[in-house]
Amino acid sequence: MSKHVLAQNQYGKAENRIVHVTRKGSDGSWHEIRDLNVSVALRGEFRDVHLTGDNANCLPTDTTKNTVYAFAKEHGITSPEAFGILLAKHFVTSQAPIHEAQIRIEEYSWERIPVPTRKERHSFVRKGQEVRTSQITFSEHTGQLQVISGLKDLTVMNSTNSEFHGYIKDKYTTLQEAYDRILATKVTSRWAYSAAAAADGEFDWDRSYAKVRTHMLDAFAETYSYSLQQTLTQMAERVLDHCPKVNEVRLNLPNKHHFLVDLEPFGLKNDNEVYYAADRMYGLIEGTIHRDGVEPVIATSDWIVA
Amino acid sequence: MSKHVLAQNQYGKAENRIVHVTRKGSDGSWHEIRDLNVSVALRGEFRDVHLTGDNANCLPTDTTKNTVYAFAKEHGITSPEAFGILLAKHFVTSQAPIHEAQIRIEEYSWERIPVPTRKERHSFVRKGQEVRTSQITFSEHTGQLQVISGLKDLTVMNSTNSEFHGYIKDKYTTLQEAYDRILATKVTSRWAYSAAAAADGEFDWDRSYAKVRTHMLDAFAETYSYSLQQTLTQMAERVLDHCPKVNEVRLNLPNKHHFLVDLEPFGLKNDNEVYYAADRMYGLIEGTIHRDGVEPVIATSDWIVA
Amino acid sequence: MSKHVLAQNQYGKAENRIVHVTRKGSDGSWHEIRDLNVSVALRGEFRDVHLTGDNANCLPTDTTKNTVYAFAKEHGITSPEAFGILLAKHFVTSQAPIHEAQIRIEEYSWERIPVPTRKERHSFVRKGQEVRTSQITFSEHTGQLQVISGLKDLTVMNSTNSEFHGYIKDKYTTLQEAYDRILATKVTSRWAYSAAAAADGEFDWDRSYAKVRTHMLDAFAETYSYSLQQTLTQMAERVLDHCPKVNEVRLNLPNKHHFLVDLEPFGLKNDNEVYYAADRMYGLIEGTIHRDGVEPVIATSDWIVA
Amino acid sequence: MSKHVLAQNQYGKAENRIVHVTRKGSDGSWHEIRDLNVSVALRGEFRDVHLTGDNANCLPTDTTKNTVYAFAKEHGITSPEAFGILLAKHFVTSQAPIHEAQIRIEEYSWERIPVPTRKERHSFVRKGQEVRTSQITFSEHTGQLQVISGLKDLTVMNSTNSEFHGYIKDKYTTLQEAYDRILATKVTSRWAYSAAAAADGEFDWDRSYAKVRTHMLDAFAETYSYSLQQTLTQMAERVLDHCPKVNEVRLNLPNKHHFLVDLEPFGLKNDNEVYYAADRMYGLIEGTIHRDGVEPVIATSDWIVA
Repeated sequence: MSKHVLAQNQYGKAENRIVHVTRKGSDGSWHEIRDLNVSVALRGEFRDVHLTGDNANCLPTDTTKNTVYAFAKEHGITSPEAFGILLAKHFVTSQAPIHEAQIRIEEYSWERIPVPTRKERHSFVRKGQEVRTSQITFSEHTGQLQVISGLKDLTVMNSTNSEFHGYIKDKYTTLQEAYDRILATKVTSRWAYSAAAAADGEFDWDRSYAKVRTHMLDAFAETYSYSLQQTLTQMAERVLDHCPKVNEVRLNLPNKHHFLVDLEPFGLKNDNEVYYAADRMYGLIEGTIHRDGVEPVIATSDWIVA
Repeated sequence: MSKHVLAQNQYGKAENRIVHVTRKGSDGSWHEIRDLNVSVALRGEFRDVHLTGDNANCLPTDTTKNTVYAFAKEHGITSPEAFGILLAKHFVTSQAPIHEAQIRIEEYSWERIPVPTRKERHSFVRKGQEVRTSQITFSEHTGQLQVISGLKDLTVMNSTNSEFHGYIKDKYTTLQEAYDRILATKVTSRWAYSAAAAADGEFDWDRSYAKVRTHMLDAFAETYSYSLQQTLTQMAERVLDHCPKVNEVRLNLPNKHHFLVDLEPFGLKNDNEVYYAADRMYGLIEGTIHRDGVEPVIATSDWIVA
Repeated sequence: MSKHVLAQNQYGKAENRIVHVTRKGSDGSWHEIRDLNVSVALRGEFRDVHLTGDNANCLPTDTTKNTVYAFAKEHGITSPEAFGILLAKHFVTSQAPIHEAQIRIEEYSWERIPVPTRKERHSFVRKGQEVRTSQITFSEHTGQLQVISGLKDLTVMNSTNSEFHGYIKDKYTTLQEAYDRILATKVTSRWAYSAAAAADGEFDWDRSYAKVRTHMLDAFAETYSYSLQQTLTQMAERVLDHCPKVNEVRLNLPNKHHFLVDLEPFGLKNDNEVYYAADRMYGLIEGTIHRDGVEPVIATSDWIVA
Repeated sequence: MSKHVLAQNQYGKAENRIVHVTRKGSDGSWHEIRDLNVSVALRGEFRDVHLTGDNANCLPTDTTKNTVYAFAKEHGITSPEAFGILLAKHFVTSQAPIHEAQIRIEEYSWERIPVPTRKERHSFVRKGQEVRTSQITFSEHTGQLQVISGLKDLTVMNSTNSEFHGYIKDKYTTLQEAYDRILATKVTSRWAYSAAAAADGEFDWDRSYAKVRTHMLDAFAETYSYSLQQTLTQMAERVLDHCPKVNEVRLNLPNKHHFLVDLEPFGLKNDNEVYYAADRMYGLIEGTIHRDGVEPVIATSDWIVA
């Protein structure tokens, strides 16, 4: 190791699956649940762990797991972001060798099964739509808390109001211009909050999530689209316009192609009725939009440094 | 091949992904969509195809695919079951060597994105909860049409009202009896309709699906459970009680274990609040309940014949 | 439940992941490993468990899991089949209410990482090719032991020596006849052993597996194919011809389509060089071949009873 | 968009699945195949595409797909890296608005099915072990070509020679120190080549891949490990020591936990023989090692900028 350099490194326990039940009401029969998948990554003075296996500076990944479960009991889970902030600060402030902690959380949402015959409520069906994500990073050096929230697997479709034409035609171009097509995508998005929001102990993360999600869906539905890039921009703009605490939005939009099936051989006219939904290959459109004057912080899918 | 026997065999195109758009309203701006995954399996006189590769009796799988798309245009898709019945009958009645056809369909449901600012409706978000399934079999020999509908990936949880005790204790038993546990499962179910329903061209398959689903959820939520088997029975019974056209119900219920985390080492009492949601291993409970006097037809996960 | 009937039902712990290490050599430094995924299903007198949640006849799934791990220590794992036989017999013979047990096992194979610098051997890389499967059923009523072995996820390709033509052309047929195409499939197969082999405590299951696998691959490679059905038959026949203890072979062969890309628009001739490997839709060919005079026992993908 | 900023963005066709067959020998009966999954991402002057849907600067993703297939015919595929370099340069040099292109390729390897009875060779079985990866980026501004190769899904295990102790114990630590444990991981790695190698038209990418892979496996097998971080460092070091054209190595090593099963309740001693292979949660160890004086370029799993 004398001649080589240990650069970025991190470790921790990934994918700690936790379900937390809160009992409310006078008799505790009204249950609320949060269902999370929590991953911990620690950064700091781990040179000896790498070079010789001297673990004096190493908090075991098993301990980081235990901490997740114990914190759920000690502090409850008011939101993934608030829970992640508690955990990130704990690791950095309680152990000298740990200088930065990053907590990533997926949340799976549930809705109640309505049961008219009784008052108590403890029955749930998993909603199964998008997964809510968050990434909380606390750094000792800067004292900064960074919160990036997001969602994934939110599949949407406009069955009209999408065109695509006027593009470059080179020698390999065979695509026909389209004046009425299906536009469908599976949204992955991440958005970064201002430092002020991250530091605000009263910030309502659940409400903010719902608001961002609604504006994204609205923008997708309302945009008459000439390119998926344009739709992407509208979705991000709408969030920045309505959510003052969000500084930056990144979207990753696979173009889930729906090809009009050629029914001419069977003497049938396909008047934008019958589509083949393809799996692969797919267009992939990615982009970041941020407020003027703000430094973007959301990692692109693969950033080229330098 | 002189000494060996060709037994059960079938072929066809699997997983034809089709999205069908219907335009309604005076200006066609109200869109309705159905999103299906259609698999075709044909049975019949295919001995030569197997023995010598003489394909004179072989309708290409590619043709079965084309038929799916063309039928969507010609007949529309009023429900997966109705669409499957049309296809199954077509293959058997139009080609002499084909004696039986089985169509299996998965349906993915979508809900509308509400857009207050406009009247037209063509924007959807995938619901992402359970997948609706159906299997339609038409046999030339019996002239019978068999419809088995179902669902999968419907994840449900009761955060209390579940116990498990009084079981056999042998030398390998270490499980502690439980008097208040989480009961969670990912429901896969199939139910068989009577021949009369299958033959009834006016039967409302969508309404029947919604009804079965509701009764299953209700029974899951309302049952105070002493075993997952008991809950399974209640779910099936409830469907048979309320849906006279359903003759048989099979359920496949993995016990999605939620283990209470031991927080004693940290000086904390876990009062049924913090659970670890495990992936594997899992209990797996399966069973069929049918009306008296009816012959069960739904395949078990692996039937031992003889 | 008075008016309904409880039919086929079973339960047990599924997907018990177990790695077993055997130390050999004078100093125990030569390690051998077996890496299994074991599922248990029990059948018997479980009526009360279903009707009232009275668990007096219920051996907990947790106990079946413990038994798997304890048996690995007590008996070792000489082969998945031998291990499954021990387990199946144990459950049926040790508990009165259990009349039949079915053990299903997946095995993941590993190969050694060669290390020239030392003698001891304890380093492995997962082979990652096919998964070996087996299903062992022991029934108290018949006293019969049934062993069905198999494999899945074995992907093979012939880049020539495959044709497809002479098939039925109906009004929905557009497929062009092919005189030189790629034939690729992902083999799933199951084969049933004779009762004599199953009862033979000395039968070499590992050797038999290797032999079946080799003959299947040979037949796939050597068959000049006019249909995938013909290839299927050749693969099954070859096994029956060479493996006298195997009575029946079932194959499930998805036709992994490789479409010749049309390069004409770019002034290029595609002389069977450039293919697009498609995911979905795919042809799916399934069939059973068995010895004359033998009753087939391998479940088809979905058996229609009656 | 007046007040917001469009930052990093890119688009292209992802996951173009291509199989390329080369016929060798005097009669062309010796076939060689390459099986790739090629993704294209383009970066450049796409502001109008995002703001107004004016596509004048947009080369359709469909065209990028066509180019992949046409290039396979025109240039063959000598290696994923060489093929990616051709594509990346093509997009940047042929279209003014495109300033940077990134090609990502997965390669699936196949091995021959030996057929003693004939000379020609066109039968293959998919190897199914690790997936080979590469990422080629060509930038107009810098004129630089960057090649990052890698692998994923290479699962390895040492059944002894691994310890873990001497770590931090805080109030949430319950882990017992281990003096003989299984160490298993599923290796994901990426390594960056020097600019000279990337620019060298004669560089043997296949040979280099094989060499890196061998040294990684050797280092894993030969390291007596006191932490997975130490093993990670040894694996990276070994590559840097033996492969002078590789400047930087990043490894992502999930700790695939194998827990010793407690058999004491059954009166059995588990002498490191019977393990439970867990899925989740898992430790996750990640790190970059590079040559001194070299700027690291491989993206970490999530880089915090600023």
